Amino acid sequence: MNTTSLKKADLIPPDEYFLIQDLIFEWARVIDENRVEDIAKLLDSQGRYTVKSRFNHDRDLPLAVIDCHSAAQLRDRILSMRLANVYEPQHYRHIISGIQVMDREGQIIHTRSNFMVVRTMDLDGEIKVIFTGQAQDIIQLHESEAKFKERLMVFDSRVIETLLVIPL
Amino acid sequence: MNTTSLKKADLIPPDEYFLIQDLIFEWARVIDENRVEDIAKLLDSQGRYTVKSRFNHDRDLPLAVIDCHSAAQLRDRILSMRLANVYEPQHYRHIISGIQVMDREGQIIHTRSNFMVVRTMDLDGEIKVIFTGQAQDIIQLHESEAKFKERLMVFDSRVIETLLVIPL
Amino acid sequence: MNTTSLKKADLIPPDEYFLIQDLIFEWARVIDENRVEDIAKLLDSQGRYTVKSRFNHDRDLPLAVIDCHSAAQLRDRILSMRLANVYEPQHYRHIISGIQVMDREGQIIHTRSNFMVVRTMDLDGEIKVIFTGQAQDIIQLHESEAKFKERLMVFDSRVIETLLVIPL
Repeated sequence: MNTTSLKKADLIPPDEYFLIQDLIFEWARVIDENRVEDIAKLLDSQGRYTVKSRFNHDRDLPLAVIDCHSAAQLRDRILSMRLANVYEPQHYRHIISGIQVMDREGQIIHTRSNFMVVRTMDLDGEIKVIFTGQAQDIIQLHESEAKFKERLMVFDSRVIETLLVIPL
Repeated sequence: MNTTSLKKADLIPPDEYFLIQDLIFEWARVIDENRVEDIAKLLDSQGRYTVKSRFNHDRDLPLAVIDCHSAAQLRDRILSMRLANVYEPQHYRHIISGIQVMDREGQIIHTRSNFMVVRTMDLDGEIKVIFTGQAQDIIQLHESEAKFKERLMVFDSRVIETLLVIPL
Repeated sequence: MNTTSLKKADLIPPDEYFLIQDLIFEWARVIDENRVEDIAKLLDSQGRYTVKSRFNHDRDLPLAVIDCHSAAQLRDRILSMRLANVYEPQHYRHIISGIQVMDREGQIIHTRSNFMVVRTMDLDGEIKVIFTGQAQDIIQLHESEAKFKERLMVFDSRVIETLLVIPL
């Protein structure tokens, strides 16, 4: 993995960058629009989706908050979260920043980006930054479509894990 | 309106995406630079600018915090806000994320994007996220220029409305 | 300096915009990945890096929190910050928004962008927005590379200065 991406222009043309950017934005938007079930469509059927604290990730500790090994498993996981969690009505709002292409192998693109999730409570209107972190994605380009082959969301705070009621 | 925008690459070439992105960034910047009067220049003379809570928007309730039906009306509104509001000196800072093209009809482009507004109080330096939400824009492309035909800002918290001292 | 950038499309083609964007993202990423020493590589050897409050900047007051006149001086400054500061373990996360090209003179590009820095404390997991502001950059394009000739970070709150433990 490159530590600098300043040669990105050599790796990827504008059209493909926009395809990747739109995939990452789409994931965020379906969650924000309260259609979290739709993220499963953006994951390759054999894809992997993992949410992990930076603390565990930096130490190569295996413990993850979410670790799905297929789109079907992700669908199951979302369904169970919807059923199991009883929580106060709330809205998520994703802010994505700094999408960079790190590496390329044919139609497989490695990217990093920053995310922030802001939660607004429906009743009292409280606004709070509940997650920040880095997404480390491996994206498969098809002709005019992109899907996540691997999506690893590393969040910065190790204290917040218990509050996760839907995927990031 | 499409619910997925993954075919965006078919809808819009890079040059036009940059034009749209720059229009949305420009709106944010003129407010952040304390030149809110200049947003009226970015709205089509017959354009519409609306600020509404997500609560009201989701229920199709008509009540909006701001609802201007022309650039002239927006100019009047800003002038009256400048005159009427007595408030502690403060700075806005916009963070924009996830600009996606949803649909296109000729030179009319439908987009969505997320916004966050962070306020810093001049006296005590307090930094606070005061708004998050989704912008639903209809943008008119001219030759090398873009203007808002409709700009709808839907903010997530319904409690915060009374604090709005300038447009978002 | 232009006050509007809507003619940006005339100033800069997509490839160059991506190069500039990637430079700005790279600066943020190396800090977030706890490799702040690497920002010196992104500054021209004779480049200038300044961090200043909006209050001082608006009044043309010379006082800056950081003001380095070369990459070597920036390296020294980072080293001394690493040595001098004793502080609780913490992570930074940058959110960048609104990169706009303001002006161009040959291979010299003037840009503005917004930044936000969110800090997470390692021990108690507290998440806090500690900086927002505007970056006013002058960027030198080389063939397939970009470097900062001048990087001026103007932050919104004048109260927060004492908390700066690493560059923004």
